[in-house]
Amino acid sequence: MKLKQLYTTVLLLTVTCTAIAADIAPNGLTLPEGYKDWKMIGSSHRTDNNTLRIILGNDIASEAARAGKTNPWPDGAILAKLVYKDRIDENWKGATVPGKFVHAEFMYKDAKKHKDSGGWGWARWVGMEQKPYGKDTKFWKECHDCHLPVKGRDYVFTTPAKLP
Amino acid sequence: MKLKQLYTTVLLLTVTCTAIAADIAPNGLTLPEGYKDWKMIGSSHRTDNNTLRIILGNDIASEAARAGKTNPWPDGAILAKLVYKDRIDENWKGATVPGKFVHAEFMYKDAKKHKDSGGWGWARWVGMEQKPYGKDTKFWKECHDCHLPVKGRDYVFTTPAKLP
Repeated sequence: MKLKQLYTTVLLLTVTCTAIAADIAPNGLTLPEGYKDWKMIGSSHRTDNNTLRIILGNDIASEAARAGKTNPWPDGAILAKLVYKDRIDENWKGATVPGKFVHAEFMYKDAKKHKDSGGWGWARWVGMEQKPYGKDTKFWKECHDCHLPVKGRDYVFTTPAKLP
Repeated sequence: MKLKQLYTTVLLLTVTCTAIAADIAPNGLTLPEGYKDWKMIGSSHRTDNNTLRIILGNDIASEAARAGKTNPWPDGAILAKLVYKDRIDENWKGATVPGKFVHAEFMYKDAKKHKDSGGWGWARWVGMEQKPYGKDTKFWKECHDCHLPVKGRDYVFTTPAKLP
């Protein structure tokens, strides 16, 4: 009986740790809960790599975007970029629409906490299974360096879409 | 004094009625409050008329989209399509992003109430000032007829973007 209890405990711990690990990027950042419900910030069609992107923001990011206070973005703002392979819509050939889900990328603003990486934490979860991206704790340099050309825009490419 | 009161009342009524009228389409549909906070349903890039579109849904629409129950969409679902002129991003030439806001289009599902227009109410508000679109109560036929090719998809072009 004791052996069975031990077995159950080990099994539960394994399942729990696996679940937790799946949500944590190599640099310790966590996949934000409920990000799919966040508000619309913008969209982009990357014709250079055939992806459609939808950019969402948490409440702090959304408020900043609507107020035009995005340089710098306020601490606590998180931006989510949902990336899809693009495809021609089967019912409207003149429209390119989201196809296969590629990954979700996140930028977490905290000027103090993330001072060594431009004031932002960087993370990405890949595929429908949301596998954390990156081999080691320094993986974020790839994200950061790609965003360096827009350092003057607080490292953010996205210009929030205008809202009436 | 009485004349001043009358004047104030008339002025207030005029302001109120103008404000209400601006929110009402010629077929009586009202611009949904808080639609800018709705959840992401999808996006599309119309290369045939150079517009980028972001599609949002109210809670009923969003739940239906995530559950894959969109043929038919449930009564109460409202879809909002925010339409922007597209433009090349100034910091990433391979990206097309939202430019000038064109209009917001809405589809309101109510199979009974809107049985004469395909089970959907149709409306559009134009520009940043959100001016109701349409000259008379039959303006919706233009929307409806354009969506006729996807009658078999409950008149909806948008395939909700996959979410992990």
